[in-house]
Amino acid sequence: MSLDPQNSPAVTSVPAGAAAPSPLVPAPFSYRDGDLYCDDVRLSEIAAAAGTPCYVYGAAGIRDRYLAYRDALVGVPHAICYAVKANSSLAILRLLAELGAGFDIVSGGELFRVLRAGGDPAKVVFSGVGKAESEIAYALNQGIHSFNCESESELLLLAATARGMGTRARVSLRVNPDVDANTHPYISTGLQEHKFGIPFPEARRLYTQYRGDPGIEWVGVSCHIGSQILDVSPLVEAVEKVLALASDLRAEGIPIQEVDIGGGLGIAYRPQEEPTAIPSFIAQVLEKFRLSGFSLAVEPGRSLVAESGVLLTRVLHLKPGSDRNFVIVDAAMNDLIRPVLYHAHHEIAPLTLRPSQPLVADVVGPVCESGDFFARKRTLPEVSQGEWLAICAAGAYGFSLSSNYNARPRAAEVLVEGATWRVVRERESWEDLIRGESF
Amino acid sequence: MSLDPQNSPAVTSVPAGAAAPSPLVPAPFSYRDGDLYCDDVRLSEIAAAAGTPCYVYGAAGIRDRYLAYRDALVGVPHAICYAVKANSSLAILRLLAELGAGFDIVSGGELFRVLRAGGDPAKVVFSGVGKAESEIAYALNQGIHSFNCESESELLLLAATARGMGTRARVSLRVNPDVDANTHPYISTGLQEHKFGIPFPEARRLYTQYRGDPGIEWVGVSCHIGSQILDVSPLVEAVEKVLALASDLRAEGIPIQEVDIGGGLGIAYRPQEEPTAIPSFIAQVLEKFRLSGFSLAVEPGRSLVAESGVLLTRVLHLKPGSDRNFVIVDAAMNDLIRPVLYHAHHEIAPLTLRPSQPLVADVVGPVCESGDFFARKRTLPEVSQGEWLAICAAGAYGFSLSSNYNARPRAAEVLVEGATWRVVRERESWEDLIRGESF
Repeated sequence: MSLDPQNSPAVTSVPAGAAAPSPLVPAPFSYRDGDLYCDDVRLSEIAAAAGTPCYVYGAAGIRDRYLAYRDALVGVPHAICYAVKANSSLAILRLLAELGAGFDIVSGGELFRVLRAGGDPAKVVFSGVGKAESEIAYALNQGIHSFNCESESELLLLAATARGMGTRARVSLRVNPDVDANTHPYISTGLQEHKFGIPFPEARRLYTQYRGDPGIEWVGVSCHIGSQILDVSPLVEAVEKVLALASDLRAEGIPIQEVDIGGGLGIAYRPQEEPTAIPSFIAQVLEKFRLSGFSLAVEPGRSLVAESGVLLTRVLHLKPGSDRNFVIVDAAMNDLIRPVLYHAHHEIAPLTLRPSQPLVADVVGPVCESGDFFARKRTLPEVSQGEWLAICAAGAYGFSLSSNYNARPRAAEVLVEGATWRVVRERESWEDLIRGESF
Repeated sequence: MSLDPQNSPAVTSVPAGAAAPSPLVPAPFSYRDGDLYCDDVRLSEIAAAAGTPCYVYGAAGIRDRYLAYRDALVGVPHAICYAVKANSSLAILRLLAELGAGFDIVSGGELFRVLRAGGDPAKVVFSGVGKAESEIAYALNQGIHSFNCESESELLLLAATARGMGTRARVSLRVNPDVDANTHPYISTGLQEHKFGIPFPEARRLYTQYRGDPGIEWVGVSCHIGSQILDVSPLVEAVEKVLALASDLRAEGIPIQEVDIGGGLGIAYRPQEEPTAIPSFIAQVLEKFRLSGFSLAVEPGRSLVAESGVLLTRVLHLKPGSDRNFVIVDAAMNDLIRPVLYHAHHEIAPLTLRPSQPLVADVVGPVCESGDFFARKRTLPEVSQGEWLAICAAGAYGFSLSSNYNARPRAAEVLVEGATWRVVRERESWEDLIRGESF
């Protein structure tokens, strides 16, 4: 911290002479001559012009990761359906639609977004445990590819709604393979104790019982065991189980054409984390698919967009303390709730590297809760008041979970393409906060 | 659950013959002939007309609790500054402004809201660890009562900004009494390990050092040790410590006029919780204030509004399971994040009571996370598809933390006054979700 000596009571010390640590900045972010860039744009240029807090996404990073999936699937009948919930920015949806992506949606609002961005409804799968009748009707009207159905109650509603519209709902049951994804409890979904999926015995019954229903057209079998999975062996185990079920069903005459294995591939939030690479993950899955005859659908979210986004923020105040130091920044838990909600780690990188002593501090926001933090007891390069920082790997489950808590306008969003950048969502104004309100 | 026998594999059982439990519904909510009312309005009337999910606030409940504070403070120089962060609905701010309330704000956006609702800026205190220069200038321009300053860095900014504007900032230091509020770690704020407050020795130095600063006018001393405090003895202990500091400072010639004890009084989220009543809490505080000569400021939030609000929701699907049953409703964690974020308990009440067997179930929303739940393994009255439920004590930290996660429009908000009700915030539309976006 750059503070007068009088303001520096016993700050948490680090070994003398230790160098400040290098933060992990994944592509498309990199340091050039000490300045942090997204692709060919210096991030300090964006922070100065667009203000902070501000999300910055690198198109190249998203495109490269999408192509890693596509290249790994060459020659295999497949669908890559981006999990819109990870980041539903119209600009990102448009970018993926132009690459030919499909979309995994979980609400009518997400379908609306996909269509606005130019996505093809025929490549949309509709997941989620709580589909309302109006959402089902909207999706049927738009001609989506299929529904991933989560319960008999929903199946009845799908069938009735479709019959009422004189059509058929194309349906896969989302089955529960009862495999532990070994991830955070809030984002693990593949066990019997979770609200997601249908147990295999019940799924077998439903496939048979509803095969003659004039409102239902069976399409496939789907599953999803969780999110942020680093070691994919549970995923591969689930794929094996689901393929066996799909084969059985086909043998019984149910016209199963495709198996949707969901999403879940993790990314490295910490330098020491080593997620399975996309090509290796797909290769392991294809090993199981070989000769099955089924088309493969995948629903990547985080692994496409997380590393391609940062949240830019500015240091408002430095507050040294006897117990610990605080770096108070202008972003807060309303902008990025992952640290407090999932105890998630995000690397924090200065926009300008310079030789410095390391500093141990909590990085916190202005919101009036002790839960409003980005890092605790983190060793950082020295930080000055007014300086900009990048909170890394914030492209997934960042802006999409943001709120107006503490009457804070939501951040601007910026997309970088090569050497150019543009605001793809304006920062909210105070007037925006009260839209639709009256006394 | 009302389900065909074929759909009911081994549901979690409850003792045969046991009656369904009665949910806790605090005033202004009550059952009349089996129907849940807010004041004199049947909630099912609101749910049918306004749709779900929908927040409903009872004006009478907020007014009564505000008057409980005011009545307990009769004859004592005081300020009751509502903590806007708990619920910043313009309608609620207007209601409190009309009763003469002051306001505790934590951002420029909250000040904007207070002013729009007709609040008196001369009764506003500005708290929070991360005030930006633009927010300070805005508050000085509006002539707020005072700033609760959280660090020397902020004090320097307050002084410089005020001097630059040819005025003085009226300032209290928010001191850290190092008292454990014995509440959830995310909402406990009074320990040295927290980002809030200034240790006593440093506060003494700052009061003395800046007393001649032409940009600073000392007003008082403030503290806040946490939120949802049921046993107020830590609060009273903090008050005692802060009063001693204030007296010392006055003896040294610092013109301290008021002591702001913050907020923190809890409410009963569970039937067995017994929070201190407002009159008893204030009486215990006044015991310490007696003869001190200081004016008393309090910043109640939750204790004014939490119990006066419910979140109305509709049952979309019933999903029985071998491990547990799920009641899937149309509200979700984006509407009310307290259960997943703070592991908070909220009572869940049917809008229509009827004789029934109890049901043990998880009550969950449509969002694609296992963290999207309102209750786990809760014993409820029997529930039917399409039925409406009220999630109770949702008036504080409910809508204010809501987001558009999963592209879900934010809920409508309704205010009930006696036998009438009106929408005070329209439900968001899908078009609202993409406002300000471009490709």
